[in-house]
This record gives sequence, structure tokens and C-alpha cells, in this order.
Amino acid sequence: RKLSVPLTVRDLMPERPMPDLPKPAEGLEEILAAVLPQEGRVRMDADARLRAGTGHGLADIWRLRTRLLERFPDAVVRPETEEEVQALLNAAMSYNHGVGFGIIPVGGRTNVTSATKCPSTEVDSRPMVSLDMRGLSKVLWVNAEDGVAMIEAGITGMDLKKSLKKHGVTMGMEPDSMELSTLGGWIATRASGMKRARYGNIEDMVLEVRLITPGGAIWQRHGDPKAQAETAIGRASTNIGLPAMVLGSEGCLGVITSAVVRVRPLPQVVEYQSVVFPDWDRGASWMREVARMPAGLRPASCRLMDQNQLQLAQALKQGSEEISAWQSLRNSLKDAFLHWKGISLEDAAAVTLVFEGHRAEVNLQKKEISKLVSMAGGLWGGASAGSAGYTLTFAIAYLRDFGLDYRILSESLETMVPWSTIHEVWPAVKMAVQREHRQLRLPGKPFMSCRMTQLYDEGGVLYMYLAICTTGLEAQSALAAFESLEHAARCAILNAGGCLSHHHGVGKLRASLLPETQSLVLTQALRNFKMALDPSNVLAARNGTWCTTALEGS
Amino acid sequence: RKLSVPLTVRDLMPERPMPDLPKPAEGLEEILAAVLPQEGRVRMDADARLRAGTGHGLADIWRLRTRLLERFPDAVVRPETEEEVQALLNAAMSYNHGVGFGIIPVGGRTNVTSATKCPSTEVDSRPMVSLDMRGLSKVLWVNAEDGVAMIEAGITGMDLKKSLKKHGVTMGMEPDSMELSTLGGWIATRASGMKRARYGNIEDMVLEVRLITPGGAIWQRHGDPKAQAETAIGRASTNIGLPAMVLGSEGCLGVITSAVVRVRPLPQVVEYQSVVFPDWDRGASWMREVARMPAGLRPASCRLMDQNQLQLAQALKQGSEEISAWQSLRNSLKDAFLHWKGISLEDAAAVTLVFEGHRAEVNLQKKEISKLVSMAGGLWGGASAGSAGYTLTFAIAYLRDFGLDYRILSESLETMVPWSTIHEVWPAVKMAVQREHRQLRLPGKPFMSCRMTQLYDEGGVLYMYLAICTTGLEAQSALAAFESLEHAARCAILNAGGCLSHHHGVGKLRASLLPETQSLVLTQALRNFKMALDPSNVLAARNGTWCTTALEGS
Ligand SMILES: Cc1cc2nc3c(=O)[nH]c(=O)nc-3n(C[C@H](O)[C@H](O)[C@H](O)COP(=O)(O)OP(=O)(O)OC[C@H]3O[C@@H](n4cnc5c(N)ncnc54)[C@H](O)[C@@H]3O)c2cc1C
Ligand SMILES: Cc1cc2nc3c(=O)[nH]c(=O)nc-3n(C[C@H](O)[C@H](O)[C@H](O)COP(=O)(O)OP(=O)(O)OC[C@H]3O[C@@H](n4cnc5c(N)ncnc54)[C@H](O)[C@@H]3O)c2cc1C
Repeated sequence: RKLSVPLTVRDLMPERPMPDLPKPAEGLEEILAAVLPQEGRVRMDADARLRAGTGHGLADIWRLRTRLLERFPDAVVRPETEEEVQALLNAAMSYNHGVGFGIIPVGGRTNVTSATKCPSTEVDSRPMVSLDMRGLSKVLWVNAEDGVAMIEAGITGMDLKKSLKKHGVTMGMEPDSMELSTLGGWIATRASGMKRARYGNIEDMVLEVRLITPGGAIWQRHGDPKAQAETAIGRASTNIGLPAMVLGSEGCLGVITSAVVRVRPLPQVVEYQSVVFPDWDRGASWMREVARMPAGLRPASCRLMDQNQLQLAQALKQGSEEISAWQSLRNSLKDAFLHWKGISLEDAAAVTLVFEGHRAEVNLQKKEISKLVSMAGGLWGGASAGSAGYTLTFAIAYLRDFGLDYRILSESLETMVPWSTIHEVWPAVKMAVQREHRQLRLPGKPFMSCRMTQLYDEGGVLYMYLAICTTGLEAQSALAAFESLEHAARCAILNAGGCLSHHHGVGKLRASLLPETQSLVLTQALRNFKMALDPSNVLAARNGTWCTTALEGS
Repeated sequence: RKLSVPLTVRDLMPERPMPDLPKPAEGLEEILAAVLPQEGRVRMDADARLRAGTGHGLADIWRLRTRLLERFPDAVVRPETEEEVQALLNAAMSYNHGVGFGIIPVGGRTNVTSATKCPSTEVDSRPMVSLDMRGLSKVLWVNAEDGVAMIEAGITGMDLKKSLKKHGVTMGMEPDSMELSTLGGWIATRASGMKRARYGNIEDMVLEVRLITPGGAIWQRHGDPKAQAETAIGRASTNIGLPAMVLGSEGCLGVITSAVVRVRPLPQVVEYQSVVFPDWDRGASWMREVARMPAGLRPASCRLMDQNQLQLAQALKQGSEEISAWQSLRNSLKDAFLHWKGISLEDAAAVTLVFEGHRAEVNLQKKEISKLVSMAGGLWGGASAGSAGYTLTFAIAYLRDFGLDYRILSESLETMVPWSTIHEVWPAVKMAVQREHRQLRLPGKPFMSCRMTQLYDEGGVLYMYLAICTTGLEAQSALAAFESLEHAARCAILNAGGCLSHHHGVGKLRASLLPETQSLVLTQALRNFKMALDPSNVLAARNGTWCTTALEGS
């Protein structure tokens, strides 16, 4: 059976009949239909409401699968123009004699932080409306000469890549979720793609952004807006401003409707490679050396996976194309190990590399990387294993959903850590999780796996999987058990010097840990900033610094 | 006579007796001395007050030279700790039964936007105090392994470079003003250095920043602050926050007391080169091709100068070491032109190059640049000319002060322009200035010169000089004439698609043009953001978006 990744996600829901949801708030449908009269633009059915209110976090999905339902939006609307977005915000303010309703912008709903979930009725009793941004998904213009393009925020990563390819350019933004996640979601969460070393993070790509707030549109063009049709200026010294005030806003400051982003000619060369190291520590030391290379000499993607990650697919026992790619990776590892005596295959770690760019650039990168490989005694694992490994992380990301069928709960944790303490993080996380696992008397052993996914001058990014089997537990206690393990892991990360999130964001999941990381005066200032833009809290998602508890505990 | 650049600036003032200044506000000295009792930390003398209230803009300097004095601060204070800064802000709030006084942070006072000038008494009648940040100038720690260092904001660029060199590292931030300008000034103005292609702009270097506001300290550390002594994490997905909320704040949101910045090992190789082109247009096309190269292959600095810039030094007829460096550059141009028939030396344009980094990196950069040079038919001008040209811009920057003796008024204008319209800017500026010059019936001809100083993927930076001779005019009318020429030039830049400022900032000089470039809702939100941090406007400089007129005309 051919298993296409996004389909598996979409397949999930229809398997069971939709549960009943509380009736939507009274009069809401009329108000919304007055703004969006066209067929299908306002939906109140359970299917649409359940989808729009569910992200990709473990808790979101597990609750849905096991019918541990919390609050869902009353309606889902799909505007197609900026004017419609503004009209919806206006309607949200005036609804029910100014009581209003809340709006939560949603893109691909791939967040893993409960960012698109509705706050409970105790916290906010107004009706909630999800604003599905995928109706705004046009590439408005491409200026290939300057390397800039203006794009509506609801476009998915895959559609964006395809459209830009027709113009001979690429944005180079490739998060593992790119099939479903959207440009607006990337901006709102400060996303990071796999080819960051070459194309940068989302903040390096976005030159301009338009945001609709209850008070009107927010934009900034560095110069005479009239003189700058289909161009953009990525750097100016004109005080604080956009896009920085929007990157990371997690749906709480306004609705991002479009952005001007950098695009580049399609690369002359794309080459994959892989390298095998006898164990994680030696692989990690090698990664450290790669990070000492000048940024221009580093490959577009360079990721170290531990042995458990190589076994993960097997553990889930799913026959699919991606899995056979895994197998081929494992086989080439085996071949590699024939040359290597006295070292167990079970301890090995593998690096997958993507080189991308000019011929001359890629050649130099390969030459410099080769030097490091021989110095460190790594073994080349081949191009096909490298390509399989790169592609497979797109698939791994969705494998969690299969596990749920077997009551295997799993989630990823990511962090950035300074080089000087990075070696402490993974052992600390493993120890904390094992301790918690024993204390909770959970069945079997926790499955844990780690990869290093990004190299910065000052630190590296660790991306960890945590999975437990919850056979014999009620759905609710299974989730509670998982959440306490995850919390233990998160605290271990923070104590070992890692950050709260390198790219997933804060959402509702990690909001309680945010106050420790910034001064109360800053939190207060950011909340006041929102108050100024959105005094009646129309953008009602309450994520991160704008959640209810952000001022407590600091 | 050996002419050291910063000395010429310092020499300027004592030449004439200090003018009298209005008496400082009553009771101010006691209040300030209560916070800073040590000798010399509070100054009320005319010398200190004149210096602190004067930036490096033409208007600032000309007014001082010709005694067209406007308002100066009542006092200059020099705190040495963050606590003293906070105590001064507290004193500013409570002074005179809550009427308060205004505070303007000053670093090297090299801004060319009147940013450190006091607002007039009509706009703000409270006493004004300049906060000289150069008392906070320590390198607090250097973590060479991670490549990060924590540094107090008042350190000058030159001292910073020297201190870091002892640790074997560099920040790579080299604005032409680095002898005098400070880390805090760079952050507050969003400065850009000459080696940006390698080290980035200030926003690429700053990982953390501490800001003292009237309500208290603002900071953010991405993780457990206790676990992160002497480290820093440069990228996190934790909503909006620092340093973006401070970069470009131009002294209006709080006092930047320290920052954690990226530092790198000293480069293995530094090499200079120069290339000569028959005319500006051919040089500019070549620069465009360099910008098409992948970022990692571009030299650390690559600047194109027009012929007038090569003649500028001669026009000023000052004998000095820098001038003889110019001469040697011109001589090597002459040699180069011997090989070139039919093209006038007077039209030539020259590129100066700095290659910096790893041996392998620099070799590849040189190879790729060489290809472009031969394809475009450029002529190599040699390493010594390249080095002279690079160093000389540090000097040119200060040459303006000599011109003033001859009533030659001059100023630089900088902008970033998208590639697709960049060729329109310089002709448009020349035409606008000549028209204005004729209309005002000024003597002689305006002197104008241009260089292209930075290459981005989507556009280039133009740095232009404008000088006029004002013989026969009163000081006041001379300034007014110059300002109307400068305004004409600025409008021509904006109309041709350039931005208001690539790196000098807005200050008071360009504040009236800012509203056109951003939506009113954004301006209002940024002003509310300040209100939340500084409700009684203690940080009283009124620059840019926080000036009195920023909400008008939009
Ligand atoms: C399998 C998988 C792999 C992943 N891999 C990566 C990865 O490699 N890198 C990475 O950074 N992240 C990754 N993520 C996380 C997630 O994909 C990102 O956070 C992504 O940016 C979310 O985009 P989205 O369109 O799905 O947004 P959603 O999940 O729909 O929304 C996320 C947040 O953004 C807000 N938002 C969305 N659109 C708008 C808009 N137009 N205006 C205002 N606010 C808006 C929402 O209100 C919400 O707060 C992954 C997630 C999954 C499930
Ligand atoms: C000869 C010359 C060459 C130049 N070359 C360059 C160049 O190459 N690149 C470039 O970007 N700029 C250049 N400039 C402009 C200027 O040097 C920069 O704007 C510089 O960043 C100003 O730093 P400063 O320490 O002198 O700040 P100041 O001029 O003292 O102050 C500038 C602004 O920053 C604020 N400020 C200063 N310190 C603090 C602090 N600690 N906390 C809060 N606010 C603060 C002030 O209130 C003011 O608004 C040049 C200027 C001259 C005169």
C-alpha cells in the first residue's frame, strides 16, 4: 500500500463517527454569513470545528482519538481577502452588543503547542471562531531579479514551493511539516526549516509583513510605498517595527495576511551524503567541528541521528516506502560497519548531509567536510542513505499517529543549547524521564531518541523523541502520565542550559515556563503592546506571553 | 604634521572660548549629586553640556561652530553601574514633585540625525540631562568556546576591538565611526559595519540585551537564567521580545546597559585588493554580479567609489597620511589606465575589497571574484590601493570638519535600494540637487560623490556625499540652503525607490518623513509601547517614531 504522508493525517479523522459538539452560540451564523455570504465559507459542522480546533500536539490528537474532548470553536470561517479578514475582526468586536466573540487564526494546524486550541469557557466565555487562513493562498507577485516575492499567508509550504519553482526560484523554507504548515503559521511561530544553514530561519527570509488588527492594517515599507511596487527592502534603520513585532506572535496580535519574502534561484546542485560514527559522542564532537567552520562552508543541512532513531521505524512495524528507505539506510550502515572492527552497530550514530548551491560552493563544502570526516575517523555511508535519511524525517514526524493505535504516546521536544553545556542535555533528559517512568510504574521502558538538527556559531539544536507505552491505562491517566514525563524532560533541558523552544513556540503548552526566562517588566510591556493593538482581546488564543498565567510566578 | 582622526574631532572645540549657556535648572545638581556623589560624575560646565548635546550631523556641528546655538542639556551625568542608571531614572521621575526631568542617553555622539540633541523648551520644558554611557565600558566576560561575550554598552568600538583581541576574538563590527561610537549607540541606531558581508549587521550580532526603563530592568534569557552563566542562546521561538524591541530605539525606550554579542576567532587571513572600472555604470553592474554570488562567497567588504570620491581628498587640500594614501591609490589608478586606451581617468570608478576568514574560504572568494573581474573587463588596482581605500573612508568621514573652516558645508546621505531601481537613484539625486542649487543661486557648483557600500541579495546600499560652498552667506542662511538641498536629495532617493535610512537612523532629522513609510496603526502601537515602558517620558529624546510629529501627515 502506498503511504503518502499528508494523507495519513487526513485519513485519521473519518475512521470514527464525529462526536457531538455543543451548539454554536446564538446569532453567530448570521453575523458571519453577513460577512462571508458565499457557500462553504462559514462552517458550523462538527467535522470542521473539530479539525480547526486541533493542532498536532500529542494532547490535541490523543484527546480527539479517545474522545477526551475539551472546547472547540463555535464556527470556522474561511476569508479570501484582507478586507474580509478586517470585516470579521470588526464583526467580532461588535457581536452581541459589544460582548464580542474571539478569533483564532489557523493555518495548517501543525503546531505542537496547543496554540490553535480554544481557551476554556472559564477563561473566556465568549464564542470562539477559527479563522482558516488557507483561503488566502496566492503568490501575488515574484520579482526574480531582486529575489523577492509577495505571498498570501495561508499558502502551504508545498504549494509555495511548487508555485515558486515555476518562476525558477525557491524560498528554501523546509520545515518537516511543510506539506501542511503555512507561511503565516511559520511567521506566527518563528519556524525553522531544515536548510537553515543556507536559507536562514523564517526571520531571515521575511522582509515585510501585513497584519490585520482590530484597529486596522499594520504595514511598513522602507521608503516611498508608491515607488516600490513589486520590490522590497530587507534592512533599514527606522526604529523598531515589522516584521520583528509579528514574528512569534502566535495568533495573538493580529492576522498575518501576506508577506514579502526572499527567494533565490533554484540551486545548481543538490547532493546528499551520509557519514557514520561509532557512537553519539563522537558524532556530536564532529558536529561541533562543523559548527566551527565559517557559515558559508557549512552544508545546507547537517543532522546527526542516534541509533534509536534509526530503529524507530522498525519499532512501529509499518510497511511503507519510507520504511524501506530506512531499511536501506540501516543496510548501508551495516556495510559500513563491516569495515569497522570492535564497534557495535547498536551504538552507531549517523549524519545526513544535504549540500545545495553553486557548483564551486558545494565542491568547497564537500572538500572541507571530507577533511573533518577523515580527521574524526567517520565512515562515509553513501548518497542514497543520506537522501533517505533526509526525506525520512518528514515521515517520522507523522509516525506518531500510527503509534496511538497501539496506545503508544509520543512527542518531540526541541531545544537550542550553548556548545559549552550541550553534552549535558541528553543524558539529563534520559535520566529524568527514566526516573519519572519508574515512579509512575508505567509498563515497559520509555523509548527515547535524539538528533542534532541545526548548528549555530554559539550552540546546537537537539530534537528528541519520547515515547511510552500506556497499555492498561485509561485515556485520561495515560495522557497525564505522558505529560508528567514530558514536563520532567523539559525541566531537565532548562536546568542543563537549553532554551524553552528553538522553533516550536510556546503556545499554551509551555506558557507556564515562560515567565522564568524574561523579566516581569518585559512581559508586562508585551502584554500592554497587545492591549494597544487589540484592546478587547479579539485575537483570543492566549498563547505564550499573552496567556492568562504569564504574569504569575515571575 | 601627523593627523590622527579622532583627535581632529576633539581638537575642534577648544579653539574658541566656550559660549555662555543658560543656567541649569534649580535644585538639579543636588538631586544628581545625591545619586552620583563621586567627583566628576555630574558636570554642569558649558564644555560638558555643549559636547553632550552635539552629535556629528552637519547642523549640530555648524551651529556650534557658528554659535547658532539651540538648546543644550542642563547637566551631564556619568553613571558606572546599572544600579546608578536605574537610580537616575527614578530621580528623573520624582524631581520637582513629579514634574520630572528628561534623560537622553549618549554614547559616542557620532549620530548624524540630531538624535542626541535636546528637544526645544517649547516642546518639552522640563530640564534635560545627558546620560553619558561611557562610564559603563567593561567587557564583563568572554566565552571564546561558544563565541559569545557580555559587554557594557558604553564601550567604544576601538576599545572593544582591542579588548576582544586579547581574547583572540573579534566582533567584526566596523562602522567608519568606530573610534568614537559605542556598542549601545550601535544597538540604539541599528548600525551597520563595513564587514557586514562576513559578520552581519548589529542585529545579527546581538543575542541579548539589558535595558533599564523607568519601570525596571528588561531582559530575556532563553532558558533557565541560573543555568546559563556566561553563555547565551541566539535563537528561540518564544514570542516577540528582545533584542528586536530595542534595536533602533534611539534612546527613547530605555537605557541599554549591556549586551551579549557574538564574537569569532580572529581571521586566519586578511587581504586587500582593488579593481578599476572605466566608469561608474560598469562598476555598478559588476557589483550587481557580486551580489548574485552566494553570500558565503562574497568578500567581507566590497565597495565601489566614484571618481569624485577619489578627488575629494585633494579638493580639501589637507596634507596628511591618509591623503598620501589617497594619492597612492590615484597613482595606481593612473598606472592601471596606461593599459587602457580611450577611456578617461576622470570617469573611472574603483572597487576596494577586503577578504577575511579561513584560508580556503578566502581563496575561493578570490577565485570567484577574479572570474567576475575578467568577465567584466575590470583592471586589478593592487593590494596597497585596496588597503588605502578601505582605511581612508574612516578618514573621509571626518574630513567634513575641515571643510567647515572654508564655509564648505557637507553631509553624507545613505540609503538602501532594490536592485531593480538602484540605477535611477544617483542620477535622480544629482539632478534634484543641481536644480535646487541653481534655484537658490548658490555660489559655484555642488560637489557630489557616491559609493556603493553594501550588497544584499535584494538590493545595494548607496552612500552619497553632498557638499556646497556657502561663501557670502550668513551662517543661518547657509544652513537653511544646505538643508533644502539635502531635503531635495532625500526626496529624490525616496521617489526612486530608496529607503529613508539603511543605517544612520531617523533621529530628529528624518522624523517628518517616517509616517509615509508605515501605517498609522503601527506608529500608534509603537508609541503606546513606549507609553507602557515610560509613561512620563523620562527618555525624552523624541527621535523617529517617538517624535512629536510622527502621527501627523500619515
Ligand atoms: C510533523 C511535524 C513536523 C514539524 N516540523 C517542524 C519544523 O521542521 N520546523 C518548525 O519550525 N516547526 C515544525 N513543526 C511545528 C509546526 O509545523 C510549525 O509551528 C508551523 O510553523 C505551524 O504552521 P501552521 O500553518 O500549521 O500553523 P498553525 O498550527 O495553524 O498555527 C500555529 C500558530 O500560528 C498562528 N497563526 C497561523 N496562521 C496565522 C496567520 N495567518 N496570522 C496570524 N497567526 C497565525 C495560530 O494562531 C497559532 O497560534 C512541525 C510540526 C509537525 C506536526
Ligand atoms: C564619521 C562617521 C562615520 C560613521 N559611519 C557609520 C557607519 O559606518 N555605520 C553606521 O551604522 N553608522 C555610522 N555613523 C553613524 C553613527 O556612528 C552611528 O549611528 C552610531 O551607531 C552611533 O553610536 P554612538 O555611540 O555615537 O551614539 P550617539 O550618537 O551617542 O547616540 C545615538 C542614539 O543612540 C542613543 N543611545 C546611545 N547609547 C545608548 C544607550 N546605551 N542606551 C540607549 N540609547 C543609547 C542616543 O540616545 C541616540 O538616540 C557614522 C557617523 C560618523 C560621524
